[in-house]
Amino acid sequence: MTSAAASRIKVGIVGGTGYTGVELLRLLSQHPYVDLTAITSRKEDGMPVSAMFPNLRGRVNISFQTPEKAALEQCDVVFFATPHGVAMNQAQHLLEHKVRIIDLAADFRLQDTQVFERWYKMPHACPSVLADSVYGLVELNRQKIADAQVIGNPGCYPTTVLLGLAPLLENGRKLVDTSNIIADCKSGVSGAGRKAEVSTLFSEASDNFKAYGVAGHRHHPEISEQLQRIAGAPVGLVFVPHLVPMIRGMFSTIYARILPEARDTDFQALFEQRYANEEFVDVMPAGSLPETRSVRASNHLRIAVHRPEGDDQLVILVAQDNLVKGASGQAVQNMNLMFGFPESAGLTHVAVLP
Amino acid sequence: MTSAAASRIKVGIVGGTGYTGVELLRLLSQHPYVDLTAITSRKEDGMPVSAMFPNLRGRVNISFQTPEKAALEQCDVVFFATPHGVAMNQAQHLLEHKVRIIDLAADFRLQDTQVFERWYKMPHACPSVLADSVYGLVELNRQKIADAQVIGNPGCYPTTVLLGLAPLLENGRKLVDTSNIIADCKSGVSGAGRKAEVSTLFSEASDNFKAYGVAGHRHHPEISEQLQRIAGAPVGLVFVPHLVPMIRGMFSTIYARILPEARDTDFQALFEQRYANEEFVDVMPAGSLPETRSVRASNHLRIAVHRPEGDDQLVILVAQDNLVKGASGQAVQNMNLMFGFPESAGLTHVAVLP
Amino acid sequence: MTSAAASRIKVGIVGGTGYTGVELLRLLSQHPYVDLTAITSRKEDGMPVSAMFPNLRGRVNISFQTPEKAALEQCDVVFFATPHGVAMNQAQHLLEHKVRIIDLAADFRLQDTQVFERWYKMPHACPSVLADSVYGLVELNRQKIADAQVIGNPGCYPTTVLLGLAPLLENGRKLVDTSNIIADCKSGVSGAGRKAEVSTLFSEASDNFKAYGVAGHRHHPEISEQLQRIAGAPVGLVFVPHLVPMIRGMFSTIYARILPEARDTDFQALFEQRYANEEFVDVMPAGSLPETRSVRASNHLRIAVHRPEGDDQLVILVAQDNLVKGASGQAVQNMNLMFGFPESAGLTHVAVLP
Amino acid sequence: MTSAAASRIKVGIVGGTGYTGVELLRLLSQHPYVDLTAITSRKEDGMPVSAMFPNLRGRVNISFQTPEKAALEQCDVVFFATPHGVAMNQAQHLLEHKVRIIDLAADFRLQDTQVFERWYKMPHACPSVLADSVYGLVELNRQKIADAQVIGNPGCYPTTVLLGLAPLLENGRKLVDTSNIIADCKSGVSGAGRKAEVSTLFSEASDNFKAYGVAGHRHHPEISEQLQRIAGAPVGLVFVPHLVPMIRGMFSTIYARILPEARDTDFQALFEQRYANEEFVDVMPAGSLPETRSVRASNHLRIAVHRPEGDDQLVILVAQDNLVKGASGQAVQNMNLMFGFPESAGLTHVAVLP
Repeated sequence: MTSAAASRIKVGIVGGTGYTGVELLRLLSQHPYVDLTAITSRKEDGMPVSAMFPNLRGRVNISFQTPEKAALEQCDVVFFATPHGVAMNQAQHLLEHKVRIIDLAADFRLQDTQVFERWYKMPHACPSVLADSVYGLVELNRQKIADAQVIGNPGCYPTTVLLGLAPLLENGRKLVDTSNIIADCKSGVSGAGRKAEVSTLFSEASDNFKAYGVAGHRHHPEISEQLQRIAGAPVGLVFVPHLVPMIRGMFSTIYARILPEARDTDFQALFEQRYANEEFVDVMPAGSLPETRSVRASNHLRIAVHRPEGDDQLVILVAQDNLVKGASGQAVQNMNLMFGFPESAGLTHVAVLP
Repeated sequence: MTSAAASRIKVGIVGGTGYTGVELLRLLSQHPYVDLTAITSRKEDGMPVSAMFPNLRGRVNISFQTPEKAALEQCDVVFFATPHGVAMNQAQHLLEHKVRIIDLAADFRLQDTQVFERWYKMPHACPSVLADSVYGLVELNRQKIADAQVIGNPGCYPTTVLLGLAPLLENGRKLVDTSNIIADCKSGVSGAGRKAEVSTLFSEASDNFKAYGVAGHRHHPEISEQLQRIAGAPVGLVFVPHLVPMIRGMFSTIYARILPEARDTDFQALFEQRYANEEFVDVMPAGSLPETRSVRASNHLRIAVHRPEGDDQLVILVAQDNLVKGASGQAVQNMNLMFGFPESAGLTHVAVLP
Repeated sequence: MTSAAASRIKVGIVGGTGYTGVELLRLLSQHPYVDLTAITSRKEDGMPVSAMFPNLRGRVNISFQTPEKAALEQCDVVFFATPHGVAMNQAQHLLEHKVRIIDLAADFRLQDTQVFERWYKMPHACPSVLADSVYGLVELNRQKIADAQVIGNPGCYPTTVLLGLAPLLENGRKLVDTSNIIADCKSGVSGAGRKAEVSTLFSEASDNFKAYGVAGHRHHPEISEQLQRIAGAPVGLVFVPHLVPMIRGMFSTIYARILPEARDTDFQALFEQRYANEEFVDVMPAGSLPETRSVRASNHLRIAVHRPEGDDQLVILVAQDNLVKGASGQAVQNMNLMFGFPESAGLTHVAVLP
Repeated sequence: MTSAAASRIKVGIVGGTGYTGVELLRLLSQHPYVDLTAITSRKEDGMPVSAMFPNLRGRVNISFQTPEKAALEQCDVVFFATPHGVAMNQAQHLLEHKVRIIDLAADFRLQDTQVFERWYKMPHACPSVLADSVYGLVELNRQKIADAQVIGNPGCYPTTVLLGLAPLLENGRKLVDTSNIIADCKSGVSGAGRKAEVSTLFSEASDNFKAYGVAGHRHHPEISEQLQRIAGAPVGLVFVPHLVPMIRGMFSTIYARILPEARDTDFQALFEQRYANEEFVDVMPAGSLPETRSVRASNHLRIAVHRPEGDDQLVILVAQDNLVKGASGQAVQNMNLMFGFPESAGLTHVAVLP
């Protein structure tokens, strides 16, 4: 750890009343180098954070404030745990005050503003900031993130699919048929957020399983844009998300067909080497079956590489906690890089099992 | 079965978009003597019922209508599966058309209009209809129900507590200390209804347990009014409801202290005799431990009578499905009585286990 | 209904202490033409069935017996709800007594005995009976089932995959690339049975998601054998099962690539026509998203046909209750055919939602 | 922190394959002053701990060993996460080697060996060690624990009931009727352990609620013995445990009748003062409703004091994580006291919500 790392930073959160917000609060309140100085919510102005989230009683003593009172300009970094469209309207102002930004929504994920506008039904408010922003998937963009002023924190599904496919596509490798990769993805219900909606009521989502967004999901273009960046060419991806009756957890089953010329590849070794130095990506031994509970409430993502019956089909299994590595933990990991902290600072929690 | 029973009746439902509504639809669509002719919802006018509730596809072919179009006056009976306060405003009109009414909300549960107004924050709209209405707990009021024009269908908690205590209090019996009976009750989340609220989201209510309404719950005065009627004197009741992470099911643990003079009572026999002819009340063998799943999706209510270590404390365990015997099944049971059908018509489903 | 249908039959169950057993009991106890005369369990000899399964209290009054006492030879049909390997050892004896057999295990599913022996690690005990047995997927084999003496009741996964693919493969159709079809399947935990095992404990399986059997699952050869029969040629299938934290329910997401010459096919119409007369197969309207709860505790199977973004990829979604259409309900459907009852006799229950 | 605190200790675990074992591993692997040197399991000798519990991958690198190989004599302290009856047979030997003992089973909980033998069906193997052991409920016995060689770590239910009642009974207070206190307690399924049993399978325990042990539960005499110690006289307690379909969490609803002479007591203040300096006991503001998820995976226990309708009935609500404050966290809290570490060392995790 450099001496820079030892200096504490002031951190603000915009919109902390959702699940990524409370998860940020849980992680940051236990972070060794962070002073949590402000959290905003127009609606809950004056309410102690711990009154809304009783798990934080005795640990987080600040209250929600309106943005006007929160003096975010004095922070070193501000996290946006807001709906899509909020961060892009406040970014310019904060940047002028040398405040760095990590957006957990989609405002800085898609570089192609036309695609953004098509999927999020709004024009992009600051294309120039977007152009300078960095896609905050640490294991792919570590160097750029360290220097970034604005981070677009990846979506939960993209995190699993991109880390599950990157070793196959990087460096111009020709290993699998990139015209038809299938990502069958499953998410816990917290991924739908803390908004009151009939479809995510306990009595609707419990003891039930379904697909959704089959006709099109916002994470699809995000994954495609990044896959193209990694592979250097468009990748044909079928992406179907499903809803699992569990609170946290995301599991992606990725199917890719091995090209004839790549049949002798040792895919297990390829993945192990790719992530050998990654603290938060665990390539499990051959034959392993990852479970979402093995990463519950932790920032780890586990991958297993299968080739059923020695056939030409790769099946990549990826498990993460959608609220940690898929959202708030990854955001803290980005922050650590940006401020020269050890990458795992505040992220060393062992997963909770059972 | 009398020949009257064979004639089919026309049935309407007001407000069928909640859980008691869909449960009524499930039961009535399989009822041998019912023609479901109308279901109203202002908001969903024109939507096929089976589009909202896909379990009814191919079985219920009508659509939601506005009350204006629904011609409820032509029904033989109308169920109100509405929020509190709706039925009492439409009752007079329907009664004038000889339509009988079964209200699943609270409008006709409490005979004391002052108590009603205190707990439901609205004046009672038709006290004279209320005076003629009958509290629809079949096992206590069978004869009156047969002749009733208006039924106040009991609350879910009251059904368990009243059936769990009636044998101890009826006929002027002096068996337990009636100054301090405790009902510790637990409900599945469907009891909170199908309204979008943060507190009943899957991610809030799953993997969690809590008490609620400790300072006062609307079912408390309802239980107290009926207990007084049964016992012929006020009964001191402590009532604490809790929320269980399951969709359906209600479980009440009732504690009553045996009076010294009643120590030799055979409580097991008392309960067995009381309910010997009741098709839907199952007094289990001594030592039994009822489970909510043993009544899932059925109209049965199971009771076990315990006296731990032969002591002076009775512990009565009561399990039901809150949506069936605790709501819609009981409503159909009332309808069967009112129209001379066999009491179990349309209610013979075996509970779903596992 | 023919007059034959009106005559009641005597039914026995071998091994009724598991989940397919209790589900058979639930369905048969409500069946209009069935007298349940015997149920065997060596271990539970003498125990009333309703003591083990309290949902059956008051509805099923027989007790478990040893096979010796059970006089199965006097039944018209015997269901085997036993582990693999039991039915094939008792089949000959029962057939000699003119007792028809429906096996819910795998003994009569695979026609290729070598494949059977490889996957079930035992020699087949009666290959000649096997040769005369019929694979009991009604929608594919209706005529043969009616005349069969021995039925191999399909596995739960195969039921969804075969019904999801049949319209694409039947009649020599060339619509999709049959060299690489992917079935990503998800099952509720009851599919693992009622055997005490750590991996299916509540504290292990709840709030968790995982794949299993990726290296090979017994249902794979069963599906492959039937697909080949349907298509008239081998079909390349990748099959990955997953475990969902719900009790009942099975959901299969099937991916098939449309052949260039079939791009103009109306797949929605194809499926609708194929299953137009099938009471238990519901092809939902275009764009629908089936949910497992829409078939909970019912014999229906729902299918939705998707072609995301109008692309060359078909995504077929299939939902069923693994214990009903995936096991015991399908077994009763087979029985109905075999004895000339209406196909839906005893299977008309509306799904339980919520 | 004294300098003593800074020195690390060697810690062993006997029997680490259950839920209290893996929870000890989770907590101890993140403890600043602990070197985990040995963990025993006869059955799993040689298996890496992280192969059984994948949440520990990369964090716990030791393997299970037979007791013979484990050299527990070289530890400073050994935790027994074993079935009842194991610790008492090994205690003498370890004590001779100056190894301190924390038993998470019942061997050192009950001082009355006759009661122990009645409830645990075995004679006590070392009554003299028992006589010197200390009941490890820190908030009641802090001073004795610091000096203890052997700790009987409290049962999960007793922890909630004792901390919920202590303020009412300590110091000879006469506030409530101690002849009839009712503890209606609810536990998550992990409390039943990791043993394969039908009754705790997902398909049995999910979507279900039931009471158990109504006729008598082993924690009853434990609670009674401690209540008598606290109150200086026998306390009449009715105790009914229930099983909740959640993995972790325990919730106790305690009913006590206020004595006429104590009607003016400020019970809220009484509880707040009693626990003002307790880091892990949170007396919530008046009117609060604790939830088990607010302590999930943390060592906190939350209490709310209610007096419904200002009546003479106290309702005390207590929530904890049964595996942390109710078991392994409390055990680590005891260890911290015994070795002069800050009481919260390794126990500062914020509860995981949602």
